[in-house]
Amino acid sequence: MRRVAIIGVGMTKFGEHWEKGFRELVIEAGLKAITDAGLQGNEISAGYVGNMASGSLIGQEHVGALIADQMGLNPIPITRVEAACASGGAALRQGYLAVASGLHDFVVVGGVEKMNDLDTNAVSQILGGAGDQEWELFLGATFPGIYALAARRYMHEFGATEEMMAAVAVKNHDNGSLNPYAQFQNKIDIEKVMKSKIVADPLKVFDCSPITDGAAAVVLASLDIAKKHNEQPIEIVASAQASDTLALHSREKITELKATKIAAQKAYDLAKITSKDVDVCEVHDCFTIAEILATEDLGFFKKGEGGKAALEGRTALNSEISINTSGGLKAAGHPVGATGVKQAVEITWQLRGQAEKRQVKDAEVGLSHNVGGSGATAVVHVYKKV
Amino acid sequence: MRRVAIIGVGMTKFGEHWEKGFRELVIEAGLKAITDAGLQGNEISAGYVGNMASGSLIGQEHVGALIADQMGLNPIPITRVEAACASGGAALRQGYLAVASGLHDFVVVGGVEKMNDLDTNAVSQILGGAGDQEWELFLGATFPGIYALAARRYMHEFGATEEMMAAVAVKNHDNGSLNPYAQFQNKIDIEKVMKSKIVADPLKVFDCSPITDGAAAVVLASLDIAKKHNEQPIEIVASAQASDTLALHSREKITELKATKIAAQKAYDLAKITSKDVDVCEVHDCFTIAEILATEDLGFFKKGEGGKAALEGRTALNSEISINTSGGLKAAGHPVGATGVKQAVEITWQLRGQAEKRQVKDAEVGLSHNVGGSGATAVVHVYKKV
Repeated sequence: MRRVAIIGVGMTKFGEHWEKGFRELVIEAGLKAITDAGLQGNEISAGYVGNMASGSLIGQEHVGALIADQMGLNPIPITRVEAACASGGAALRQGYLAVASGLHDFVVVGGVEKMNDLDTNAVSQILGGAGDQEWELFLGATFPGIYALAARRYMHEFGATEEMMAAVAVKNHDNGSLNPYAQFQNKIDIEKVMKSKIVADPLKVFDCSPITDGAAAVVLASLDIAKKHNEQPIEIVASAQASDTLALHSREKITELKATKIAAQKAYDLAKITSKDVDVCEVHDCFTIAEILATEDLGFFKKGEGGKAALEGRTALNSEISINTSGGLKAAGHPVGATGVKQAVEITWQLRGQAEKRQVKDAEVGLSHNVGGSGATAVVHVYKKV
Repeated sequence: MRRVAIIGVGMTKFGEHWEKGFRELVIEAGLKAITDAGLQGNEISAGYVGNMASGSLIGQEHVGALIADQMGLNPIPITRVEAACASGGAALRQGYLAVASGLHDFVVVGGVEKMNDLDTNAVSQILGGAGDQEWELFLGATFPGIYALAARRYMHEFGATEEMMAAVAVKNHDNGSLNPYAQFQNKIDIEKVMKSKIVADPLKVFDCSPITDGAAAVVLASLDIAKKHNEQPIEIVASAQASDTLALHSREKITELKATKIAAQKAYDLAKITSKDVDVCEVHDCFTIAEILATEDLGFFKKGEGGKAALEGRTALNSEISINTSGGLKAAGHPVGATGVKQAVEITWQLRGQAEKRQVKDAEVGLSHNVGGSGATAVVHVYKKV
């Protein structure tokens, strides 16, 4: 297996793109990444795209071929990968394997979702397809409800408070205010979160990530070639993916994501690091409780202490561990298929020192954590400056 | 890159499975394949599944995680791959890469689609998402119409007749009648095809593949390990995938599939063979005209002669080249995500000498050809007895 590096990144602004279609989003992010890599399109020999639900959202399947066509990359194979909200991370992993295997030297990996073309209720039903359709969605359990169960149990077991979850949202809006690509660039405070409308008790509007249009892309190369094309290649030193039960009711515990723990441990082993070595981290905060669980499952805090840590500011920019410098899913937005790739874009900017106002000082090691459904898929990547 | 072999295969009967759900289909095919490989589930370390449209068809995305869960394979990663009707072939290719790269020793690859839970018009719309939603489907061009354009043009350019297309259907029903897994096991004749209702002139009902429920699975292993687990491993000696424009109107010619030609040439080069070396072949006959084009694009017949060859019986079982011994998509059925994997199952049975009444004599080299949409994706695999 060869060593693999990111040599180009690009993304659209995340948000409500009424002026752009699915195709425009893909092209914008893809061209930025290929240009950033200093490549011509004809040097790319394969592609992967993370997309969860374009079939339901815009009536278009077969988006791999669509992208090869629209970006003028025919006849190279571009393959769509789907793992619900972890589609982007799973696509990155396939791109990584395609380069690591020696089959391809340059691979483009994109992630995209166009979610605002339908009304919120329809989108919520479609997103529910990331969980167990027969045993959860059909019975009315959409994702806010599922994560609310985890939040309530977490509060019960560990004495956590709603303010601790609110602190996650406040911190991510702080970071989002420093990110020109974020959907929400406004700061909020704990009072604003606490007074916002209840979606699924104890989760309120500001505990939930929004519905978002957007795309992100990275160009991967084998490390030996990478250095010729980019002065600052960022190596992917570990790629790990794990599965857990689709439905929440089948889990032993609902206050941890077993798939995250397994994928993280495997990633740390592959990267030969521990959680203490991570300087900057993008975690999957589809809901504020999800970020708290992630910071524990990834090993940054002991079980039950993630909420308190968030409230104490230990996950803020340039604190103990900088979590979700992009604003996370909460403030940067969550175009589901794009999120996992956007995380890689943000970590690359951080490790290159190009994150501007939200730059983490002396960042050497980054990690991205992308979750599908309520934790049935988790994908963890570790990145290092070369 | 390591050499890769198929050591286990399994499939459900293809047809209208009112008595089984998506999960039951997957489990049946998957367990058959793992059992056939002589493995325990805990020896498998990754999986891929081809599925086109479960989100739209049954409201369930994230089917990779669902399958890991339902088959008791957690926490290994199982990743869904989608390339419209070529989803199965694309999944097989990802599984192949995962083993060839050295990352995994045993990988299961499945394909599945449950299509009969909605009415035919709804399914037709969903399948239309394999083409260009904005420029074809939205304007009313579903797939029978798109392939009818190709058929009409082929007749015009090469003097082909409707009887030539009918001959493909008759031959595939002949083969299907010998396959206990086929959706249609009844023989038909040219007159029956010619008198069947017009779907999109010149294509009639019997020129079209049906709507089907079904699943298929194979277990892959690195060749050196394969021999310890199976006396008859079948090596995958080439895997190639190519893209073309999503919409028919963008193509230079509509009487050939450029992606098929490119993928086939690459596959022949990798396998160090020519089309003349192929003994048994499963091609993507979503419509009878598609089989005719495929037999030309794969190099078995000169351009314009595929129709005549079909009428003359040169593609029948144990003739010049045995095409679609399973019955093809036309008679065996076309559960879109499963088809590409079913093709690999059929070729494996043929090369092992286990195809019973439809066995091709002395079959040494097999080929499968899986197409997405009207040709925007083509995946070609070549198989050999070890």
